[in-house]
Amino acid sequence: MTERLVVIGGDAGGMTAASQARRRRGPDELEIVVFERGGDTSYSACGIPYWIGEVVDTRAELVVRTPEEFRERQDIDARIHHEVVAIDTAARTVRVRDLGSGGEDDHGYDQLLIATGASPQRPDLPGIDGPAVFGVQTLDDGQAIIDHLAGLELDRAPRAVVVGAGYIGLEIAEAFVTRGIEVHVVERSPRPMSTIDPDMGDRIAAAMAGMGIELHVSTAVSAIEHDEAGRVRAVVTDAGELVADVVVLGTGTRPNSDLARDAGIPTGATGGIVVDVRQRTPVDGVWAAGDCAEVHHLVTRRPAAIALGTIANKTGRVAGINLGGGYETFPGVLGTAITKLCGVEIGRTGLGEDDARAAGYEPVCVVVESTTTAGYWPTAEPIAVKLIAERHTGRLLGGQIVGEAGSAKRIDVLATALWNHMHVDDLLHVDLSYAPPFSPVWDPVLIAARKSWDAVEADRVDG
Amino acid sequence: MTERLVVIGGDAGGMTAASQARRRRGPDELEIVVFERGGDTSYSACGIPYWIGEVVDTRAELVVRTPEEFRERQDIDARIHHEVVAIDTAARTVRVRDLGSGGEDDHGYDQLLIATGASPQRPDLPGIDGPAVFGVQTLDDGQAIIDHLAGLELDRAPRAVVVGAGYIGLEIAEAFVTRGIEVHVVERSPRPMSTIDPDMGDRIAAAMAGMGIELHVSTAVSAIEHDEAGRVRAVVTDAGELVADVVVLGTGTRPNSDLARDAGIPTGATGGIVVDVRQRTPVDGVWAAGDCAEVHHLVTRRPAAIALGTIANKTGRVAGINLGGGYETFPGVLGTAITKLCGVEIGRTGLGEDDARAAGYEPVCVVVESTTTAGYWPTAEPIAVKLIAERHTGRLLGGQIVGEAGSAKRIDVLATALWNHMHVDDLLHVDLSYAPPFSPVWDPVLIAARKSWDAVEADRVDG
Repeated sequence: MTERLVVIGGDAGGMTAASQARRRRGPDELEIVVFERGGDTSYSACGIPYWIGEVVDTRAELVVRTPEEFRERQDIDARIHHEVVAIDTAARTVRVRDLGSGGEDDHGYDQLLIATGASPQRPDLPGIDGPAVFGVQTLDDGQAIIDHLAGLELDRAPRAVVVGAGYIGLEIAEAFVTRGIEVHVVERSPRPMSTIDPDMGDRIAAAMAGMGIELHVSTAVSAIEHDEAGRVRAVVTDAGELVADVVVLGTGTRPNSDLARDAGIPTGATGGIVVDVRQRTPVDGVWAAGDCAEVHHLVTRRPAAIALGTIANKTGRVAGINLGGGYETFPGVLGTAITKLCGVEIGRTGLGEDDARAAGYEPVCVVVESTTTAGYWPTAEPIAVKLIAERHTGRLLGGQIVGEAGSAKRIDVLATALWNHMHVDDLLHVDLSYAPPFSPVWDPVLIAARKSWDAVEADRVDG
Repeated sequence: MTERLVVIGGDAGGMTAASQARRRRGPDELEIVVFERGGDTSYSACGIPYWIGEVVDTRAELVVRTPEEFRERQDIDARIHHEVVAIDTAARTVRVRDLGSGGEDDHGYDQLLIATGASPQRPDLPGIDGPAVFGVQTLDDGQAIIDHLAGLELDRAPRAVVVGAGYIGLEIAEAFVTRGIEVHVVERSPRPMSTIDPDMGDRIAAAMAGMGIELHVSTAVSAIEHDEAGRVRAVVTDAGELVADVVVLGTGTRPNSDLARDAGIPTGATGGIVVDVRQRTPVDGVWAAGDCAEVHHLVTRRPAAIALGTIANKTGRVAGINLGGGYETFPGVLGTAITKLCGVEIGRTGLGEDDARAAGYEPVCVVVESTTTAGYWPTAEPIAVKLIAERHTGRLLGGQIVGEAGSAKRIDVLATALWNHMHVDDLLHVDLSYAPPFSPVWDPVLIAARKSWDAVEADRVDG
């Protein structure tokens, strides 16, 4: 008998799972229906800032596979502009609204995968729901920003205010700068990128200043003002008013788990849906993957909610293999992330200094400065590497890298080291590659490991 | 009482050891004398091709620290142009020839570190010792090549023949191309870079052709001919004669261990000096580090002789810590290496397919093609990743990467994975970084791990 898999959400988590399930079970065994409330399936949300910044030319380039392709190539019935508005786990049905017609229908399922993603946090502020206050989550969001910019009729350079200096906030700020827009970034905390430690974050603030981005730290937004015609006019902060022709929210995201919660499917303190190692929720026949689901953080050993395409793809793959009758488990995440701000590259993995303390560790930290290549190589650029190691043991807890071209991808070595529970006194020996165009003879990561071990030993002697 | 440490060889291995020993024991405790037969201490041999290629402007840039600096800053008595010609391990003396005066003296030691490095293999061929047949080992070698090129008086473009298509051979070939010299590379085996598997090596041959380098594979050199004035004229091969105005040996190196062997200090089948985990030879008070010493290969679990600056620095550090009264052991190597040939980057770690079989493993191999960044990113470039995994278990045995800008440093993730005995079904989950300017959402290394695991599983079902 044919089983029916219903997938809610047609981006990375949902479509990866659908594809993996299809690889293992053909249409005779498994019918797969995907309901997506937006107009696209399987797109690169991470590419949106670069589309706005005109590095990527067209919307189509960000679409990995269209609904038609899923239907034709994989017999996956992907229905866009269809929103699931309720789940009945007892009856094993979902209520689906056709956003075109407005009509609603119930659809039965044998297995249900929730892959509803995450949405930008919208702080509860006057004016936040105005027409020129944008998130950056869907291709429609990106299109709306691009259309809005094209429609501006100004006798001066346009001005943008980005609320929040996280990864998305900085990427959008860079995009606006490349379009010749004056950019102000307002950040509540005392520094940009709260996932990067202050001693490294200062380098990012300096890079922003170098690009002409006005950064307002320790500044809270209190309202977004519009004029009588409904056009956005200014962002009001506790440090004054910033004129704005466009406002973008880079305030982080929250898992889209209300639908699940309303159906009695457990969610955790992170807001994400609770899943086991195979991506099963505690409710029979209901699975979750992608940004809406919790993940296990391998260093804190606690649940986390991290909205990242890599994790969505990986958890979607695990869910899909299991839904297809295979066996796979998801080990967890390290919180690895990377971005760039014009020439400055930023990478991080594991725990920062404060994160480590909050998780109960006592960290010993070092920052080293080196070069991306041999010092005499013409393209040698500065790179700073921070390692966070556990006191007494030297166990690696996290790493952060800020530097110029060729710096940040080195974070993957630290991620692989963390994955393997390495201690810095072992890491410093690892046979990493060297040639003058690629690194100093001691790669900066190894220099950092050496200094980190020195610091752990010195601390042990002292305390 | 002051002890006396004598170090033979003033490059990476010897000077790193001397510096580390000095950090732990001051001049009152430990006198350190270094005898170096060349004219430089602590220089970057790996940078010589780029000096010849005019990427690096001056010889001085390749010198990390001069003898004067060692003397003044660290109280290390580094004597250049002094060659140790014999060791008497019973009397604990070395016989030293002053290459300036020609005089010889005996010097006593309490501890002796042999760090004599490696030398280019000179096949026993007629004409091989001619004046325009160069190695690329010391700064003097580099200077000799540069001076020779400057002195050529030709009514046509100069022609170079490079014997051997290993790392050094290719780097020198690239250097000559950038100087507008016509380059022929003669390689005995059927493909360039014997440490890279054939399916990957073909990409390198294609890159060489694209640069205008004439590659003659499966070709043996039988003689090097000189004219009556002693000028090099041609390289004679079994496939004909190649006109040459300069000849460079890129035929690999052999450990400089004759001095040790003559003194009764054991050497292994690799030709390298036998050492324990702390870099001690079996002879009391005698240590060895750098290219002249054997290293433990972590995947074959056998001794190896690998001439690389990274390993020389690391083994020198271990020897120096121990000589300074500390405790450190050297875990071993993976055979990681990296280079580039104009735009093409090449990295490798662990075992190739044939290496793996020779070591007794049954390998399952995959090659995947991907892009260095998100496919839609303007600088996306092709990258090929080959993984060699153990049959049945999926244990990673080696990896190779050939691709364009941004490819090869990813080999470090594979090196770190190998170091930790990872299996590909674990590797595919690792939380590596992703953003569109840096990688596809599945990093090519992870794609390779996924395909590798698929291949291991398929093989297990079949056999």
